[in-house]
Amino acid sequence: MAKRLRIGLIGSGNVAWHLGPALENAGHHLVGVYSPTAKNARALQKRLYEAQLLSEPDFTGVQPHVVIMAVKDDVIPYATGEAIIGNNTLLVHTSGSKPLSALGYASTSRKGVFYPLQTFSKDRKVDFQHVPLLVEAEHKEDERLLLELGKTLSKQVTTMSSANRTKLHVSAVFACNFTNHLLTISQQIMRNESLDFELLKPLIAETLSKSLEIGPENAQTGPAVRGDVETLEKHMQFLDKAPRLAEIYQKLSQHILDMYTP
Amino acid sequence: MAKRLRIGLIGSGNVAWHLGPALENAGHHLVGVYSPTAKNARALQKRLYEAQLLSEPDFTGVQPHVVIMAVKDDVIPYATGEAIIGNNTLLVHTSGSKPLSALGYASTSRKGVFYPLQTFSKDRKVDFQHVPLLVEAEHKEDERLLLELGKTLSKQVTTMSSANRTKLHVSAVFACNFTNHLLTISQQIMRNESLDFELLKPLIAETLSKSLEIGPENAQTGPAVRGDVETLEKHMQFLDKAPRLAEIYQKLSQHILDMYTP
Repeated sequence: MAKRLRIGLIGSGNVAWHLGPALENAGHHLVGVYSPTAKNARALQKRLYEAQLLSEPDFTGVQPHVVIMAVKDDVIPYATGEAIIGNNTLLVHTSGSKPLSALGYASTSRKGVFYPLQTFSKDRKVDFQHVPLLVEAEHKEDERLLLELGKTLSKQVTTMSSANRTKLHVSAVFACNFTNHLLTISQQIMRNESLDFELLKPLIAETLSKSLEIGPENAQTGPAVRGDVETLEKHMQFLDKAPRLAEIYQKLSQHILDMYTP
Repeated sequence: MAKRLRIGLIGSGNVAWHLGPALENAGHHLVGVYSPTAKNARALQKRLYEAQLLSEPDFTGVQPHVVIMAVKDDVIPYATGEAIIGNNTLLVHTSGSKPLSALGYASTSRKGVFYPLQTFSKDRKVDFQHVPLLVEAEHKEDERLLLELGKTLSKQVTTMSSANRTKLHVSAVFACNFTNHLLTISQQIMRNESLDFELLKPLIAETLSKSLEIGPENAQTGPAVRGDVETLEKHMQFLDKAPRLAEIYQKLSQHILDMYTP
């Protein structure tokens, strides 16, 4: 049986919103919540059993084992400098793109990262059992603590260095941020041509589901992988009026052609 | 009650494989199958109740109302010239990227398109009810026939001109072919860095599901939409060793920056 931990929370955004209750469901004790956005902080506190709403980021009174700082990436240094964390408390951030050293200004020497590799929205359910948790800490015993904490939430908990997390993040930008943007481009083309984007949704969903199942290299379709130059040219002609889209079309098609053409 | 149609099939690839039995389940009579790939043609015929296996693409003997030519895009002109279709039979192809005029050499003057907007694989189930069917025909009465035929299969049947189908196809290349390629790139980065691509799968699935639900414009995340230049530069540095990926990263990030920066 894993240890029941006393946990403090900084932030009241999407990550804190889901992580707080999930930690309580896993048996931990949320002792204090702080967020500069008072309204959100109160709403989050109401989702928790008996966490104190702190008016200042001073956690020394509630004596947590761990304080989880779930704030926007660019606020981490500021929030770290502001927080008062006792030296026997472990402070972690939850960012995938910021290194452990982003906690450089912390008042505690025990620092770490507790990164749930998922995108969170307040109105969408999260099943933490299937959210990979990537942890890192300056001290081995803290790393063990985070692994143990992670295992109470998720089936997939692993250590990952800040350097590897950066590489993972680059991959995620290609796989998620850019793919979403391509959907936006697709939707805009449809809209500009008075066509219904809804028509494409079943194809998009099946393409992705197949890609994840058999592997994207085995799932590539389209004119570029077929070497169908006639269609590529017809599409480039259509994109004449949108030169920046034409450029993106050309770069990605060329990359596919080069990868698959023998 | 829709009319029970006599249907002929040219081709034995993934589309024919699913479309044939689906048409029979919808109450139609598959009367003949022809494919130059004899082995596949036999396997497809076995999936059908009483369709004849034709040794030549001559459908005059089995008197179909409609012959559906489900062959690879670049084979359409050749297969059309070869097929013997009576003048009271409607010939349609199933391609999303080829115009109606690709059937120019047909022996019948009744020509059309019956395009199921989905990707098909022999070993994946297809629920035609949720596959949009886009139809087009040279004659109004044939268009009506295709709409009627389509409605026996799918809840979403609509007419679309060849010109609009080309625009739809460009959108689909962005939304499906290119997104799949970005997953391939992502997987390769992970592999090169000895990281497990499996870690990213829950994030990819949730990103897409959210994007389709709330709309991709509302779902954009990542360093570019945040204007997080520090992270963008860190990623570009990491991609220094892969200049073509760096170029794709740069183009897509710039496009996102320009779209969302006020």
